[in-house]
Amino acid sequence: MEIPKGTVVCERVESRALKGNLPGDPHVRDLYLYLPPGYEKAPERYPVAWCLSGFTGRGRMLLNDNPWMPGIADRMDALIADGSAKPMILALPDCFTHLGGSQYVNSPALGNYEDHVVQELVPLVDQRYRTLASRDHRGVIGKSSGGYGSLILGMRHPGVFGAVVCHSGDLLFEHCYKRDFGPAIRTIAKKGGVDSFLKAFRTSPKKEHADIGALNILAMAAAYSPNVKAPPPWCDLPFDLTTGELIESVWKLWLTWDPLFMIDRHAEAFRGLRLLFLDCGKDDEFYLELGARAFVKKLRAMGIAHEYEEFEDGHMSISYRMDRSLPKLSHALAR
Amino acid sequence: MEIPKGTVVCERVESRALKGNLPGDPHVRDLYLYLPPGYEKAPERYPVAWCLSGFTGRGRMLLNDNPWMPGIADRMDALIADGSAKPMILALPDCFTHLGGSQYVNSPALGNYEDHVVQELVPLVDQRYRTLASRDHRGVIGKSSGGYGSLILGMRHPGVFGAVVCHSGDLLFEHCYKRDFGPAIRTIAKKGGVDSFLKAFRTSPKKEHADIGALNILAMAAAYSPNVKAPPPWCDLPFDLTTGELIESVWKLWLTWDPLFMIDRHAEAFRGLRLLFLDCGKDDEFYLELGARAFVKKLRAMGIAHEYEEFEDGHMSISYRMDRSLPKLSHALAR
Amino acid sequence: MEIPKGTVVCERVESRALKGNLPGDPHVRDLYLYLPPGYEKAPERYPVAWCLSGFTGRGRMLLNDNPWMPGIADRMDALIADGSAKPMILALPDCFTHLGGSQYVNSPALGNYEDHVVQELVPLVDQRYRTLASRDHRGVIGKSSGGYGSLILGMRHPGVFGAVVCHSGDLLFEHCYKRDFGPAIRTIAKKGGVDSFLKAFRTSPKKEHADIGALNILAMAAAYSPNVKAPPPWCDLPFDLTTGELIESVWKLWLTWDPLFMIDRHAEAFRGLRLLFLDCGKDDEFYLELGARAFVKKLRAMGIAHEYEEFEDGHMSISYRMDRSLPKLSHALAR
Amino acid sequence: MEIPKGTVVCERVESRALKGNLPGDPHVRDLYLYLPPGYEKAPERYPVAWCLSGFTGRGRMLLNDNPWMPGIADRMDALIADGSAKPMILALPDCFTHLGGSQYVNSPALGNYEDHVVQELVPLVDQRYRTLASRDHRGVIGKSSGGYGSLILGMRHPGVFGAVVCHSGDLLFEHCYKRDFGPAIRTIAKKGGVDSFLKAFRTSPKKEHADIGALNILAMAAAYSPNVKAPPPWCDLPFDLTTGELIESVWKLWLTWDPLFMIDRHAEAFRGLRLLFLDCGKDDEFYLELGARAFVKKLRAMGIAHEYEEFEDGHMSISYRMDRSLPKLSHALAR
Repeated sequence: MEIPKGTVVCERVESRALKGNLPGDPHVRDLYLYLPPGYEKAPERYPVAWCLSGFTGRGRMLLNDNPWMPGIADRMDALIADGSAKPMILALPDCFTHLGGSQYVNSPALGNYEDHVVQELVPLVDQRYRTLASRDHRGVIGKSSGGYGSLILGMRHPGVFGAVVCHSGDLLFEHCYKRDFGPAIRTIAKKGGVDSFLKAFRTSPKKEHADIGALNILAMAAAYSPNVKAPPPWCDLPFDLTTGELIESVWKLWLTWDPLFMIDRHAEAFRGLRLLFLDCGKDDEFYLELGARAFVKKLRAMGIAHEYEEFEDGHMSISYRMDRSLPKLSHALAR
Repeated sequence: MEIPKGTVVCERVESRALKGNLPGDPHVRDLYLYLPPGYEKAPERYPVAWCLSGFTGRGRMLLNDNPWMPGIADRMDALIADGSAKPMILALPDCFTHLGGSQYVNSPALGNYEDHVVQELVPLVDQRYRTLASRDHRGVIGKSSGGYGSLILGMRHPGVFGAVVCHSGDLLFEHCYKRDFGPAIRTIAKKGGVDSFLKAFRTSPKKEHADIGALNILAMAAAYSPNVKAPPPWCDLPFDLTTGELIESVWKLWLTWDPLFMIDRHAEAFRGLRLLFLDCGKDDEFYLELGARAFVKKLRAMGIAHEYEEFEDGHMSISYRMDRSLPKLSHALAR
Repeated sequence: MEIPKGTVVCERVESRALKGNLPGDPHVRDLYLYLPPGYEKAPERYPVAWCLSGFTGRGRMLLNDNPWMPGIADRMDALIADGSAKPMILALPDCFTHLGGSQYVNSPALGNYEDHVVQELVPLVDQRYRTLASRDHRGVIGKSSGGYGSLILGMRHPGVFGAVVCHSGDLLFEHCYKRDFGPAIRTIAKKGGVDSFLKAFRTSPKKEHADIGALNILAMAAAYSPNVKAPPPWCDLPFDLTTGELIESVWKLWLTWDPLFMIDRHAEAFRGLRLLFLDCGKDDEFYLELGARAFVKKLRAMGIAHEYEEFEDGHMSISYRMDRSLPKLSHALAR
Repeated sequence: MEIPKGTVVCERVESRALKGNLPGDPHVRDLYLYLPPGYEKAPERYPVAWCLSGFTGRGRMLLNDNPWMPGIADRMDALIADGSAKPMILALPDCFTHLGGSQYVNSPALGNYEDHVVQELVPLVDQRYRTLASRDHRGVIGKSSGGYGSLILGMRHPGVFGAVVCHSGDLLFEHCYKRDFGPAIRTIAKKGGVDSFLKAFRTSPKKEHADIGALNILAMAAAYSPNVKAPPPWCDLPFDLTTGELIESVWKLWLTWDPLFMIDRHAEAFRGLRLLFLDCGKDDEFYLELGARAFVKKLRAMGIAHEYEEFEDGHMSISYRMDRSLPKLSHALAR
C-alpha cells in the first residue's frame, strides 16, 4: 500500500547577503523545499518549518536516502500518511561554508547567513509558495548546530518564528566545545599550523574524524570570534595553539553566543512561542545533555513553557527523533 | 563557474522476477538513472554503467549528497566536465532486502535479484533510453557487496557485461566472513536467537553496528545457503549457533559463491572483458585486500588482463575511488 | 585486622630441558613459589597447584600488585583466611620465550617447555618442599595460554596432574586464532616481513597491541608448526603472508594441538581427574567462550565429569575468577 | 651474563600522620625500598629518590614484573650495570586511598599524605638506611599523579628535595580534569549518585575504565576541595551533578593546587634545584603535554633552569621514559 508522496523542489537563489563573502564561498545557493502531498491540487496555504542542518551539512543532505533511516521528505510523507503530522512545507537552506558550517550567524569571517535565511529566504518562500506567511505558522527546527541555529534564530527573530525545535543543540559551551580544544590543538599542530591544516583538509579526498573535529573549532571561532585582521580563516582562537591556555577575552566573546546565556537577554522572545521543544541523548558524544538540562532549568526558572525529552542514545544517526518533533511542530504551526 | 549537470530520473519498475518473493519484500522497485549532460538534446547513444550498491544500500543512496563526498551524479558531472570521463548513463538498481541486501543472486530465500537486474532492468533501460545496447558498451561497477555483484554478474553474464569494476569486493570468504561469525553468534545469542534478533532489529529505530554485522551474516546465508524448509530467514548457517563450530557442508556451499573459486569455472568470461579493474584499501576493515590479492594472483596465473590498485585507506567512505574507476570505465565502454 | 600471609620464595633453576634452545632464550629460570601461612612452622605436607601464566607472561607476573586486583599470593592469603580455600603451595614457572610464550609444549623452534615443567620443576619442588608428592594432590591451573597449558599438560600427563583448571583457555582454533591471521599479515607486512617485524619488535621500547597480536600468531606457529629448516623464528605459517590463503597442511598441524580434538585421543586421562573446571567470559575478545562450549559439549557426550561457568566479562583483568577456582582446586587436591 | 641485582626491602610503617583518617583507610603502610647492588657490603652512603606512583597505584606496584617492561628495581639494576646511572636508593611510598589516590597532599577528606611522606617517611629512611641525608642528595620523581606529587612536594619543601622529575604530570587543570567532568557526571548519574556509585565501585570485582575516570574526579575533589561537612567522600564538586555547570568558587580552590599557578608562589623553591626534568607524550590521553608546555613557558620566563622533552607516545605504559630520567636524577643527586 503506497503512501502519498510530497514533492521536492529546488530554488536556486542568488544571495545578496552572501555575495562577496570573505572566504569566497558560493553566493548562489540551492534551497530545497518539500511540498506536502496534495500541494499542487489544493488552493490551501501551508505552514513552513525551516529545517537547519548540522555542522558539515546543508539542506539537500536532509533528503539523503537510507532504507533504515528515511530522509526528511520520506519521513514527513509517512508522518502525514499515518495521521500523526499535519501537512506543512519544509524549507531546507544551505548555510555550508569552507569551514563546514556557519552557525546561522552573520560573521565577517564567513558571511551573513542569518540574514540569508531570515531576510532573503523566508520572504522568497512566502512569495513563491502558498504559505501561511506569518510567525504563528512559521517554525524553525534543527539538530546539533542546526538545533543551535533554531534556538538563536528563534530568540533573535520572534517576529519571524513562532515555534522552535532544538534536537541535541550546542549549549553550555563550557562542556560542548572546550573538550575539543585539546584534540584540535594536537590535530592542527600535526599539520603544521592552521594554514597548512586547512590546505591539507581541502585537498584530502577523505575528511578524517579528527580533522572534522578541529575544523569545527575553527568554524566556531569564525562564527563567535571573527577578526578580519587576522590571517585566514579570519578569527581569534580562545586558546593558545601551543600551550592550550584559555584566552579569556576571546572565550568571553564565545559565551555571548551561548544560548544558555543569550536566553537572559531574549526571554521575552521565547515566552510567546507556540512550541518550544528540546531533546538530547543521554549519551551524547559532546555531552550536550548537560547544556540541555542547564537551559531547561533556566526556562523553568523563567516560567517559559517548553517540552524536554532525554532519550537513550548518543549524538549520531538520531533523525528518528523527528518522529517526535515534526508532528508536534506541524500541530503547533497549523492554523 | 558552473559545470554542466546531468539529469537524474527514476523508473518505477514492477518486477516479475521479484514478485512473490518469500520474505515479502516489495517487487515494485525504483531504478534511478543518471543521464549525462546533453542527453536530452543530442541524438547520441551512450554506454551504460550498472552501479551496484553495497550491503545496506540501494541505488538511490548512491545519489546521496555530502559537501565533501559528492553523490555519484555530481561526481560524474565533475569527471565529465574536467575531461577525465566520457559521457555515459549510470543505472542504479535497488536490490535491497529485509536482510539488508541480496548479493545480486537468485535465492529462494530472498528473491531473484540476478534476474531482476540482468533480465528485467538491462532490457528495460535499453528499450527506454538511448543506450549503446551491447555488452561492449555495458559495464558493471560496485563497491563491497556491490563489487562482489560486479564480479559475479560479470562472470555469469559475459554476453551482457563487457567491463567490470570491483572496489573492495567480497572475496576470500575464509577471511572476510569467518571473522564475523563469532560476533554474529554473540549478537544473535544476546537477542535470544535468530528470530527474536530479526524482530528486534526490524522494530529498532536505530540499527546498531554490531546488529548490522550479524544481519550481514544472515544475509550471506540467505544468498549462499538458502533453505526454504528452514524457518525464516529460510537458510542454513555455516556454524553452530552455540559453539561456533563450522558446519562444513554449509560452508562448502558458501565457497561455491566465492569469486576466488568461481573464476576457475568462469575464466573465459573474464578473458573477453574490455576492462577488469579491482582495488582495495590496505586497511580494509574486512581484510578484503587479502582476497583481492589472492584473486589478482589467479588472474595473473590465468593470463587474464586486469588492473589492480591498493590504496591507503579502509573500507568506509571511499567513494572517491570512483574518480579512478569511472573514467577508466567510461573509456572502456565508449564506442 | 591483619590476615596471615604466606611466603613467596624464588628458586633459580638451571634447566637442562631448555639448555641450548634454538632462539637462545635463557635456560636459567626463576621459579616462584607461594608457601601458605604456617608452612615454616608446621611439619605438614601440602598439595601443589601449578599456575601457568598466559601469553606475554611468566610466573613472577602472577604476583604483581594492584590495590584492586591482588596478586595470586595476596589472593590466596585472603581465600585461606576467610576459610574458602585450604592451604596449598602455588608453583609459578617461567615459560616465556622471545616470541612471548611457549604454549607449554616441546618445540624445536622454542625449547622443551613441557619437559621443563613436568620433568624438571615438578620433581624439584617435590624434593625441596614439603609437598604431597602425588598426582592426586597436584593440580594445574591457568588462564588464556595458561588455561591451554593446563588442558594439554593435564591430558598428556595424567600421572602427574590430578586436577585441571582452565580459565578462558585457547580452544577451537578455528575461531580463536584465525581471526587474528588478517591483522597479523597486515602488521607484519607494514614492518616489511617477519624478520624485520621481529627486529623492530625487539628494539621498540613499547610493545604495541597490534604487534603483540602478530607476535602471538608467530608464537603459535613456533609451538604448533615448527620447522627448524625455515629461517627464524623456525616455523611454518598456516597462511600465505601476502594473500592470506590458508595453507591446509600447516593448519592441520595446528589442529592436532587444539584441545577440542586432542580430547578425542586423551579422554581416559580426563576421566580420572579429581577436578576439571573451565570457565570463560561471554564477551571474550578472542571468542573463547565458543571453544569452551564446544569442549564442554564433548565432555558431556563422553561422560567426563566437569564444571563449567560463563561469566559476564571479557578476556582481560579477570584474575578475580580465581576466587572461584582456587577454593575448588584446593579442596580437590586436599588429602 | 648476569647483572648485579639490588635488594628490595619492605618497611611496615605505623603512620601517625594517617592515623584516624576520615575515610578509614589503613594507617599502617608498606614502604618498599630498593637498595642498589653492593649496598650490603659497602659502608657507602647513597642518595635517595622518592618515587611517587600515579593514580590507582602505590609504591609496591612500581616493582611489578613484565618481561617487556621491567619493574623499577630491575630497571635500576640495568641502568647501573650499563653505567648510565649511579647507584642510589629508591623509596616507594604507599599513598593509596579509598578513592584511588591522594595527590600527595594533606586533606581532611583523605588524610595527611604530604606529612606522611615528608615528615614521617623521609626521616625514617634517613635513620634506618645509609643515606646521604640532605636535600642535595634527595630527589622526588613520579609519573602522572606521581609527577604532580613531585612538582608540589618539590615546590613546598625545598629544604627536603633538591631534584624533581615530573613525567606526564597533572598540570593545567583547565584541560586535564575538565574534559573528564562530563563523563564523570554521566557515570555517576547512571549509578544513581555519588554514594551509590562509590558503593558499586567498592563491591565490583572489576573496576571499569569509565568508573576509574569518575573516581579520579572524586579523588581530585577530595584533595583540592575537601569539605568535612559534606557527606562522604567529604568534598565539594566543581560542577553541578545534573547540568554540569561550573561552580566557580570550588573550581578556584582547585586552581590553587594547579602547579601551573603554584609556581608563581614557589618560584624560589625551584630556582635552587639541582635537576628539574619534565617530559610528556605528544599524544597524552589527558592532553598533559599542553600543561607541560605552559609550565615550561613559565619556567623559561622566570629564568628557572630545567630540561623538557616531548616524546612520541601517550600516557600509558611509558615507564621506559625512566631510562631517561633515572640516570639524570642519579647524577644530579650524587655527591
